[in-house]
This record gives sequence, structure tokens and C-alpha cells, in this order.
Amino acid sequence: MNCLRTRVNYRDADSVTIYDRGLQFGDGLFETIAVREELPLLWLLHWARLQRGCGLLGIQPPEEQRLTEEIKSLCQGVDKGIVKLVLTRGNSSRGYALDKKALPNLVLYLFSWPENIEARRAQGAHLRLCRTRLASGSFLAGVKHLNRLEQVLAKAELAGEQEEGLMLNTAGDVVEGVSTNVFALIGDRLQTPDLSGCGVQGVMREHILMSAPELGIDVRITTLTPGDLIRAHEVFLTNSIIGIWPVKQFQQTVYAPGLVTERLTEHLRQSYC
Amino acid sequence: MNCLRTRVNYRDADSVTIYDRGLQFGDGLFETIAVREELPLLWLLHWARLQRGCGLLGIQPPEEQRLTEEIKSLCQGVDKGIVKLVLTRGNSSRGYALDKKALPNLVLYLFSWPENIEARRAQGAHLRLCRTRLASGSFLAGVKHLNRLEQVLAKAELAGEQEEGLMLNTAGDVVEGVSTNVFALIGDRLQTPDLSGCGVQGVMREHILMSAPELGIDVRITTLTPGDLIRAHEVFLTNSIIGIWPVKQFQQTVYAPGLVTERLTEHLRQSYC
Repeated sequence: MNCLRTRVNYRDADSVTIYDRGLQFGDGLFETIAVREELPLLWLLHWARLQRGCGLLGIQPPEEQRLTEEIKSLCQGVDKGIVKLVLTRGNSSRGYALDKKALPNLVLYLFSWPENIEARRAQGAHLRLCRTRLASGSFLAGVKHLNRLEQVLAKAELAGEQEEGLMLNTAGDVVEGVSTNVFALIGDRLQTPDLSGCGVQGVMREHILMSAPELGIDVRITTLTPGDLIRAHEVFLTNSIIGIWPVKQFQQTVYAPGLVTERLTEHLRQSYC
Repeated sequence: MNCLRTRVNYRDADSVTIYDRGLQFGDGLFETIAVREELPLLWLLHWARLQRGCGLLGIQPPEEQRLTEEIKSLCQGVDKGIVKLVLTRGNSSRGYALDKKALPNLVLYLFSWPENIEARRAQGAHLRLCRTRLASGSFLAGVKHLNRLEQVLAKAELAGEQEEGLMLNTAGDVVEGVSTNVFALIGDRLQTPDLSGCGVQGVMREHILMSAPELGIDVRITTLTPGDLIRAHEVFLTNSIIGIWPVKQFQQTVYAPGLVTERLTEHLRQSYC
């Protein structure tokens, strides 16, 4: 995967000052956006989440029109690609105290589309239980912020690109995959974990939560245990890049291709990638 | 507070690449070191903590002699100052996966000594209970890593330099101050919270834990509630810059200057600042 172009504060650049609070404290947010035919997909959901995150962290959000134009310009001529956006609180001296006059720093990366994504999706994921747990009770739950050490260490437990790690909270309930959200079909109900204690509210998760009812699929946000996944008929993972990634195997349990996963995938294909 | 000099990977520089994982994920560690008469104080404790953090995160630690020489050279001619060290896992492309060949990035900042530190210490701290809680159950507990959003948001609750925020875990027990550790004298026993669930193991806390027994002061690591602090005869805060910071007031409780705090401060003054 190559980085084709980078922008810092609306200019071609590939570095930030060491006073940036993203570097100093992980004090910021990020978004990873799929690009198709010059368009940032699910942009409204990404933008809404970025704004929510800014509100929670007290970071000044970018001016919408300027950001939209910047991203549009970055996507020009891109048939398939990925835009990563990092927004930090800006610069400050030593210490946690905010410089209220500081302006946020906006970093944009345009990456080429990873060639193996479609193959990984077709082959299905091997889901493995991670030892690394997500600390819960954070009021930062749901936010796609830059404090990602738990995910970094969970990812380091995995081997190979067909593996995804299942992350539990400290109570032992399922939260999410390392870089995906989790859905399980149990009986005739599609279920996905409640993220009010920890985890990232993926835009693709949101998209599925909105789309499923349109297809007559009953979907609920609930508490799920690893045992629930073993009992499930279908399990799939979602994020904005891979879309819907069927789980082929979780621990010793092997899943046959499932009808609900297929219908949602087909629905997504029509509207997405 | 001014930054007098900065070094990135052993060269004069003041920026990092936007591929740095400190920026992308808070994937790294930091240390804040007081400098007196050209010497980095408590250096062995800082170095030991940095090595422990590297071990837990799987980051390659800097070569000891090279780092020591680099810091020594940075401190040359400095009567009083602060060195901040940031060590990140290095650079990588998009995504949590580690590039195992990546070398860590080392960032050093030399700051002038904040002129108000002695006055703040003499005046005593006003300790306020923060709404922002520390998520517990993290195996990253104790490590001085770069995922510091909880501290950033807690700090934003405070007003003025005489205030420090008291941070509780989700169970409601005392963990630490926003950028300090907490000690309370209850009866004739000095107590400081257990940090196995969350919090930062400050080097000054370690120094006090080692020094107190030498002075015949009984010191224990334990569970403390806000109520315990209200019942305490003396409360003080510690970090590597302010040293020992007596608490003058916590919520409605006002503390008189205390003998144990004074003895430890005098002991520290002889060996430290």
C-alpha cells in the first residue's frame, strides 16, 4: 500500500511540528475513508462522526466547505483509494494544558487501494480472541480518537492478513474487532455489541444499522459474549475499507456462508463498492 | 515556558514525519525530566521506567550510552531546565500493523525552568475532584505512554495554576492527580494508591516510596477513596518537576502544613532541588 499524496493544513507536506498534541498526547481524531470514482464513500457519516468527536474532545472542527473541497481535490482522478484524515488539537508547549488560541492541525493521506482487499473478503476472516482487553468505562467510548495503543497491541497478537482479533472488555463481553465492528446472526436477529463503555462506532456499522431494517432484517444493539458468537449462525465484521467481511472461523467454530450476510453484502455492493 | 532546543533522532530538528506512529496512534512513551546544574535528576528511575515501557509495548529501547550522552549534551550549560523525551515506535503506513523493521523515533525538547514552580509549591495545591475518570483494567497501567486523552480532558476542567485535579477510576477510588501522584498521611501511615488498574507510576512517587522508610516513615501502597483524603492529616502530590507539592485544600477540607510532608521535602531538597 503506497501513500500517493499527503497534505498538512491544506498544503502539500509530510511532516508536523513536534509540538503537535497528536504526537505529544494522542490528542486528536482520525477517519479512514474509502474512495471510489473520485468520491469519498459514506462521507456524511465520516463527517458526522468527526464533528461528534470534536464536540466531545472540545476540538474546533474544520470548516465544512473547506474540508469537503480539500478532500474532493485529493480524490481527483482516483478510481479506488483510501483517504486517511488526522485532526489534532494543534500545537502547544509541554504539559496537558490547552493553548486555547491554538488551531487544530489537519493531516490528510491519500493511499492506493490495497489490492488484496477483495480476496480477503472473499476468503472470509479467521477471528481470534485477543488477550489484549479494552479498558471500559471511558467517556471516550465510541469516538475514533488517536489513543489507540490497545488496538496496536491487539493487532500485534495476530498473524497474517486473514486474521482479525476479537477484543473483549474487562468484563469479558465482546466489543469489536481490532479494526472492525462485529455483527452476529442469532436466531433470526442480527446483533452487534453496545459500545457505550468502549470501542469505536464504525461508519460501516452505522450504515448496516440503517440498511438492515430496509431489507426487513431485525437488528439490535446488545450485549454479546464469545459464547454468543459460537452459537451464532452467521458472524461478520465491518469497516469502511473492507465493507462486510464474513467470518469463516472463530476459534474452533466454522461458519457456512450465510444468507443475511450475503443479502447485506449485495445491498452494500449496489450502493458502495 | 520556552523551548530552547529540540532534537529528533539525534539531530537538531523540530518536526516528525506524518507516518510517525506517535502521531497516528499515540504509539509511544514519554518522560519529563528535571535538570539541575547540567544533570538530569532521577535519571536512573526515568531510564528504568522507559525500558519497562518499551518492554510492555514491544518498542526497541534506545541504546543506553548513546541516549545518556545525547541527554548530557542537551543539558550542557543548563543550570535549571526540563528535558522532555518522546519515544515512538517509529514510522509505518496506514493501519495498526507494525512494521517490524521500523526504528523508533526519539524526540527531545529542552525547556527553560518554569519560574513559578517554587511559588506554586510554597502556596500549596487546591485539589479538585475531576469529572473525567480513568478507565481501569488496562494492562498499560503504570506506563507513561502517549495515550493521554483522559489527562488532557481532566486538565481542561481546572482553572489556574494552583489547581490540580484528582482523578478517580470507574469504581470511584483515587488513582492520581492529572499530572501528579497522590500521597495521604492517615494516622501515622503514609499511603499512596495502587496503580495496577490505571495511572502513571511517577518517578518521584518511586523516589518517595524508597526514601520514606529511610526517614522512619511507614509508607504503603493501598486503595484510597476521596473520603480517605478528607480524613487524612496531610496530603501531598508529587512529580519530577514540582517535587513534593503540599495540598492546602481538597474540596471543602483545608490542611495545615504537615510534619511528614515537611520532612520528606527537606530530604528531597538535600538530594534534588
